[in-house]
This record gives sequence, structure tokens and C-alpha cells, in this order.
Amino acid sequence: MTAQPDQTGSASGQIIISVDAMGGDAGPSVVVAGIAKSAKKNPQVGFILHGPEDTLKKLVAKRRVLDGRVVFRDCPDVVTMEDKPSQVVRNGKNTSMWSTLESVRNGEAAGAVSCGNTGALMALSMLRLRRLPGVTRPAIAILFPSGNPQGFNVLLDAGADIRADARDLLQYALMGASYARNGMNLLRPRVGLLNVGTEEHKGKAELKEAQALIAEYAERANYEFVGFVEGSDIPGKRCDVIVTDGFTGNVAIKTGEGTARMIGSLLREAFKYSPLSRLASLLAVTSLRRLSKRIDPRRVNGGVFLGLNGTVIKSHGSADDTGISAAVKLAFTLAQSGFAERLAARVASAAALTQDEAAPTGAQAEKQESR
Amino acid sequence: MTAQPDQTGSASGQIIISVDAMGGDAGPSVVVAGIAKSAKKNPQVGFILHGPEDTLKKLVAKRRVLDGRVVFRDCPDVVTMEDKPSQVVRNGKNTSMWSTLESVRNGEAAGAVSCGNTGALMALSMLRLRRLPGVTRPAIAILFPSGNPQGFNVLLDAGADIRADARDLLQYALMGASYARNGMNLLRPRVGLLNVGTEEHKGKAELKEAQALIAEYAERANYEFVGFVEGSDIPGKRCDVIVTDGFTGNVAIKTGEGTARMIGSLLREAFKYSPLSRLASLLAVTSLRRLSKRIDPRRVNGGVFLGLNGTVIKSHGSADDTGISAAVKLAFTLAQSGFAERLAARVASAAALTQDEAAPTGAQAEKQESR
Repeated sequence: MTAQPDQTGSASGQIIISVDAMGGDAGPSVVVAGIAKSAKKNPQVGFILHGPEDTLKKLVAKRRVLDGRVVFRDCPDVVTMEDKPSQVVRNGKNTSMWSTLESVRNGEAAGAVSCGNTGALMALSMLRLRRLPGVTRPAIAILFPSGNPQGFNVLLDAGADIRADARDLLQYALMGASYARNGMNLLRPRVGLLNVGTEEHKGKAELKEAQALIAEYAERANYEFVGFVEGSDIPGKRCDVIVTDGFTGNVAIKTGEGTARMIGSLLREAFKYSPLSRLASLLAVTSLRRLSKRIDPRRVNGGVFLGLNGTVIKSHGSADDTGISAAVKLAFTLAQSGFAERLAARVASAAALTQDEAAPTGAQAEKQESR
Repeated sequence: MTAQPDQTGSASGQIIISVDAMGGDAGPSVVVAGIAKSAKKNPQVGFILHGPEDTLKKLVAKRRVLDGRVVFRDCPDVVTMEDKPSQVVRNGKNTSMWSTLESVRNGEAAGAVSCGNTGALMALSMLRLRRLPGVTRPAIAILFPSGNPQGFNVLLDAGADIRADARDLLQYALMGASYARNGMNLLRPRVGLLNVGTEEHKGKAELKEAQALIAEYAERANYEFVGFVEGSDIPGKRCDVIVTDGFTGNVAIKTGEGTARMIGSLLREAFKYSPLSRLASLLAVTSLRRLSKRIDPRRVNGGVFLGLNGTVIKSHGSADDTGISAAVKLAFTLAQSGFAERLAARVASAAALTQDEAAPTGAQAEKQESR
């Protein structure tokens, strides 16, 4: 069931990413434009593209840079945004989403990218790739713009599962720290547990239990636990990884995104107000562009599904070519760093330690994740 | 136990607000500056000020506008931000916070304002003012900047209680709609229930139950129910009132506030980047000031405690004089509109209807809230 990374690249060191061409709001032409953008920047990346082959071949033929770098998998069906995950699991065998995951499952590709229906993608990923041993609930990790030097914080779970008990939250802490190490090059990420206040006596019972567990594993799993954090710390500097259940995480990131969008539109309004402010906006155009690039959601497009045998990136449904290209880059970076294997080792180690604090298998696995 | 509004003003139509001078981060001088600001703008407002009388008298004597408009209540003790609510409930009798609520309880004042410890203020409010009949969990309602014409949306619960069942969420919908009607003059507020998606099949079981209940009461309670909303709708235009439990609500508003703060600081940075951008920021200063005024948290300073016998406004602990003055204005506006009585009638009506759909007491109470 485990993806075999040694099959995912050619002898030339090429890394193959499996891409779902369908299911996004903008259709396959934008997805092809996105992978072309990636191909231009990165000579090491190759693709398996899933969808109606005739259509896709025509789109790819228009892009010189994709010559000889795309393999096609013909799939007649598409998972729509309205499809229920349970239906897709039962009847989705001929969809491009299913096929995209299949390439990771059989080791042809080092990671999968899809901009389709999140719920269906998670359900299919759990069915076809299976959870890592020791993981009860896989999580979606997203990057949120922050005041930290790396520019972004990791938040998980951003909505894979609306529930999480203390042990799930510990798994999220381990997986999130591992992701921050491999994706953002932070040697000892600071992990915070989201709550309504930083005082120890506040919050739900499962959070207090999770607090103790996450603190207990900090040393062995090589992260710093800063304790409870608040909503304001998601874009803040107190920690690099924010751990929470998928309900709270989903509401929080959407509130943050909505607030940023509202301020953006008020800012545009403010600059249109008078001739003087219109002039100012012309002079400030570079500054404003710099700001909007800094918090551009397309630059960090993609939630990563953590806790599965294989890397799956969920791109925004409304992603444009820049967004698709960012998601491909993320899949590539994680594949290159051997993230899937490191994460599996880390989680297995914790699972072993949970069962038996002194288990030798745990200690062994621990050493496998060198960074 | 109920505050008697006919005792809260003099014959001249003055409305008395009970103000806790202590417990804020900036000390009593800022609170006195804040009420002086209110007194200057509003000849109809008077104050009962709670705290160490000697100190307060000196501060008030410096403000001409407060001459003859402040009554003092000497209290030796202060509730600090570190005090646990349970301790304050047991040992807080001599605190300014306790005394502030007492003036509402005995009908001397039409509303209370405090910038002290939120948990302690809620615990004391529940103890001394008591919950309205039919309310299990009082809620904190806050105003969040939004794209709607009124400029703000109501969110509740913002953190009074980390739990809420379906019936609590219905109460929040009723109280929030009533608050939007009386505080923002919206005749038929649009109410949304916060969830991780707008699809009917998503979310927790208690949310589905709450969805049915809130829909059922929409007609009778004169609000429009838009169904499930997402985090992005908190600053958005889809509804005017967002209903959620206090854990999710607290995380969401703090995430929104944190995001706004981060963008503000990035914006300042962006404008300092080059000589040209510095010039632009000079030209844009009015536009930027207009924007920052639009989303200034001080202008909407204050969470309102809903579901109690009496109006209590929690001002930010870090509020300056503008913030205090805004909280006083809110208490004044709500007192003037007879909000406490309307809300009590609305909630009692729903409670009666819940017990017996055709109860005549319910129908009677319903008519009392004319707007």
C-alpha cells in the first residue's frame, strides 16, 4: 500500500507529480497552464495528467515546454464540487481524482495534486492510500501568512475532520512539526495548541489532556511546545505550528482569509476616494503590490494531507495557473526532501512510544528522521 | 432581581451608566478621560463610578464637564486579569466590579461598563444579575467590521461559554437578532449559523439540530435565516448576525483581529520601503486614516453580555479613552431603546413557545417587542 519513492523518478533524477486536470472551477486549460509554468521553472519535474485524454492532449500540445514531460491517463468521469464523498467512494472508479491518487498508490508518482472537492479527495485518499500506521485521523495542513521570518505559519487540521481527541491533536503536533521542518526548513519548530486563552485553567477537557501529551513528546520529537495559543497567534509570531481540530481550524482560516479580503477591498475603496488618494495609489503601487504578494493566497496554494501513505496536495478550487504551479512546487519540494518517509517514521515512532515508552522499534524509527 | 428602568434616570431624562473605574490595563485615569469624552458629546448621560473614591474624586475634579454628573461608590478592592472567576465570585464583594454590577441590580443605573477580567465579569454578572428566564447560557455579542451597509456584523457567542447545544444556539439567534434590531436598527436581521461549509450535510450533529430550530423560529422572531455560513462570512455580506459556540467564536474573532493587525503592520512596512513609497504614504494619509477608522476596534469597543437581567458591556482591557467612550455610548444607546426589556420579552416568548407552541403568554410577549 505504501508508495515506493524509488519508482517515482527516472534515472535523470526527475520527480513525477500526478495531477488531476479536472474538478477545478476554471477547467483543465488552467491546470495545464499551471503545470507548464512549473515545467518552465523546474527542469526536474514531470507529470502524469488525469482526465479526458483527447482534450488534455490538445491543451498540452500547445505548450512546448511540456514536450515529452507529460504522461496521460484517460478518465471519462469527473468529481464535481456537489458530489458527496460517500458517493465518490462508491462510484468514483472512473474519475480523474481516483486515477490521480492511483499513480501515487502504485508508486508511479511522488505526489498528487488536485483542485477538486476536498471532502471527496480526503475520502478517496484514505480509501486508496490508507492511513499511516498510528494515525487515526489524517489532517489538512495549510500555510497562513504570519509575522514570523519564514513568512507563514502551519495550521492543522484545516478541515479534514470536524472532531479531534487529545491523541489526534498529539498526532497533529508531530505531523505539523515534521512538515514545518521539511517544508519550511525550521529545525526546531515551535508548536502551539489553539485555545480561547493562554491560561492553563481555560478550555475544554480534551485540550488540557492534549496539552500534557504534546508537552511530553516535545523533547523526543524535536519541537518546542509553547503551550496554549489564541486565534491572534495564527498570523502571529508566538509559534510556527498551530494545532487544532478541523472544525475550529477551518472556521479560523476562513475568517482570516475573509478579513484579509475585506481589508483589501476597503483599501481599494479608500484609494479611489479623492484625486489625491488616487495619485497616492499610483505612487504606492509597488508597495501595495509587495504587500499583496506577501499575503497572496496563491503563493501558498494548497493544503497538504498529512497522515497518509503518500503526499496529496489539495489546491484551491478557484486556483489559477500561479496557484496550480505553487501546489506542484510544494509537492515537488516535499518529494525531494523525502518528507513522506520522514513523516511516516516520526508518526510510527510516536505510535510505538505511546504503546510502550521503551519500545526499541520506537527508538529506531526516531533516528530515521535526521532533521 | 430585574433592573427597573424607571429608576435609572432623573426627571430630566438623564440615563445613568454604572462604570467600573478599575481593572483596565491603563488604570482609572483613562476611564475618567473616557467618561469625560462621553459627557462632552452627550448631555443626557450621567455616571456612577466605582473604585477608590479619593483617587477617583481627584481625577474627576480635573474634568469640568463631569461636574455634578458623577456619583462615587468607594471600593477598596480590584479584580485583576489574573484572578480566577471562581475566586472573584467567592471573595469579590469589595471589588469595584461587584459594585458596578450592584448599581444595575438595584436599578440605580441602566447599564454597566467594565474593562476588567472577562471571565470574572461574566461570572459575577450571572451571580448578581441572574439569567433571563429561558436562557441557559448567556452569550457575549461583539461587532466585527464587515462589508455590509451597517459596517459591522454581530457575532455571538464570542467567548462566554465554550459549549453550546442546539437550544443555546437558538437562544443566541434570538438574542443576536434582537441586538441587531435595537443596536443597529436592522428591522429584519439576516442570521447565519457558523459551520465548516454551507452544504446541509456538513458539520456536527448539534449544528444540524440547531439549523432546524433556528429556521423554525425565523418567522415568529422576525429574522431571516440564511442557513449555514462559513468563517469568511463573519466579515462578509451574507448575513448580519453570526451564531456559534463561544470556543469557535472566540478563536474566529481573535484570528480576524490578528489578521487585520498583521496586514496593518505589513502595510506600514511596505510604505517605508522606498522614498517613493514614503511619499505615497504621505499623500495617502487621509485614505489610510479613513480605512483604519473604518476597521478601528476602538469604535466598536465592547462585547455585550446578552441573556442577563440588565445590560453589561465588557470593554477591551487595553481600551483608551475613545474605547471607553464607545462602550459608554453603546450602553446608553441600548438603555435608550429599552433593549433589555425587549430582549427579555423576546427570550421569554421563545421559551414559552418552546414549552408549548400555542401558549398565550408566548403570543403576548411576542407583541411587546414592536421593532
